Amino acid sequence: MRTAFYISDGTAITSEVFGHALLSLFPVQFNHKTYPFIETEEEAEKILEKISESFQDTGERPLVFYTIVNVDVRKVIAKSVGINYNFLDQFVAPLEKVLGVPSKPEKHRTHSIHETTYDIRIEAVNYALANDDGSNLKDYHEADIILVGVSRSGKTPTSLYLALQYGIKAANYPFTEDDMGDMLKLPSALRRYKDKLFGLTIHSERLHQIRSERRANSRYASLQQCRMELREVENLYRREKIPFLNSTKYSVEEISAKILAQTGLQRRKY
Amino acid sequence: MRTAFYISDGTAITSEVFGHALLSLFPVQFNHKTYPFIETEEEAEKILEKISESFQDTGERPLVFYTIVNVDVRKVIAKSVGINYNFLDQFVAPLEKVLGVPSKPEKHRTHSIHETTYDIRIEAVNYALANDDGSNLKDYHEADIILVGVSRSGKTPTSLYLALQYGIKAANYPFTEDDMGDMLKLPSALRRYKDKLFGLTIHSERLHQIRSERRANSRYASLQQCRMELREVENLYRREKIPFLNSTKYSVEEISAKILAQTGLQRRKY
Repeated sequence: MRTAFYISDGTAITSEVFGHALLSLFPVQFNHKTYPFIETEEEAEKILEKISESFQDTGERPLVFYTIVNVDVRKVIAKSVGINYNFLDQFVAPLEKVLGVPSKPEKHRTHSIHETTYDIRIEAVNYALANDDGSNLKDYHEADIILVGVSRSGKTPTSLYLALQYGIKAANYPFTEDDMGDMLKLPSALRRYKDKLFGLTIHSERLHQIRSERRANSRYASLQQCRMELREVENLYRREKIPFLNSTKYSVEEISAKILAQTGLQRRKY
Repeated sequence: MRTAFYISDGTAITSEVFGHALLSLFPVQFNHKTYPFIETEEEAEKILEKISESFQDTGERPLVFYTIVNVDVRKVIAKSVGINYNFLDQFVAPLEKVLGVPSKPEKHRTHSIHETTYDIRIEAVNYALANDDGSNLKDYHEADIILVGVSRSGKTPTSLYLALQYGIKAANYPFTEDDMGDMLKLPSALRRYKDKLFGLTIHSERLHQIRSERRANSRYASLQQCRMELREVENLYRREKIPFLNSTKYSVEEISAKILAQTGLQRRKY
């Protein structure tokens, strides 16, 4: 199997995202290896050896995705026997022309604590945790968005992703059978913040499957119960004109991107 | 201010990461706009208008970062008045030669629920939540890693990031004063899994500052208390040979990348 190397003097997240997106276009399996924080020529020389070894072992030239600010370290990696993708750099010179200013590379600019929005993101994560699963009804005035839906419809991972990735304060509230009675009504804690609500729903068979993994053969997991709860929440969303999304076929990343696009909610971090 | 557009028929995460990494090399502010899930020529035409409007409003040609699988939709965006970065595509043809196979673009391949590791990531997030803050001592056999450290040293956001990003099951356990007594000893629940432990520490002034935001003027937040607790945990790490990291200057992304590099822990998702 051919090896893909991701190398950086920072986290290597940018190399990984770019390389992964490119390689995912091919119906080929790769062996992935990431080397973050390669900050000296000596460290880079060691990686060169690993690239050479991989070539010898597999007979296939490795793919090498790298972003390195330090010129001397970069030159070492550029000598590798692999196929080198210094993908960021080749866009820098043309962009300097467009912007009319020279680039000012600083090590670890992206994904570092020096990003101005870093503290905002951590605060948002703490908020999401403190306001997960209806555990706290009194701080909704601080929320950017309040996700609502039945248990196991994807609220918690989405709240955390919105916080970590975008610095958005997302609370979430689960509608339970207790809320339903004759007909599901909007709890008063939520009604006050109705314009922050966003609903999630999910196919009943998928919900039944997810809940069964947690509590097999329970009433909670039964298809009948899942159907009833979903019917109630979807009726509520329509009656109260709460925007909503069926999460069944979407990843947390997709759900989050769709929520932002649909609500126009501004992220605090780009 | 010049506008940067990020456009995709998927989440646009790849465009954003690439564009953000490139733009962060320049000491210039941009107005960022993301348009995910642009899947039809009609939708693309509407985005073209937005790009034109931005050019008219600002007098500066917008930067347009896009990854679009559908050829017809892509052609529409390629006509924009902005400066277009179809950055992924220009690497595809050379890579086809290297690999000897044609690319097989499928819409939404990356960041989608169809990634084989998606369920693993969500399971890891649920694990991190259920095993946050020492709340559960009985499922450590399932952990890939157990983060330890004093309260507010960065354990929880790191656990969540390891789970969401890499599918790693990370538990975390806070050492409190109750554990310390005369000298901090390793609780028996942890000793059994000693080879899974990874310690976090932090500068005492920074810890004092973080805790003061939570509980100003408390004993918990006092510099003296922070110093005592940190001295105890660092002594423990050294005595028990637990690998550890000072998180003060690092982002969650950097801490996570460093933990992986230092421990050799294999991620379940690339």
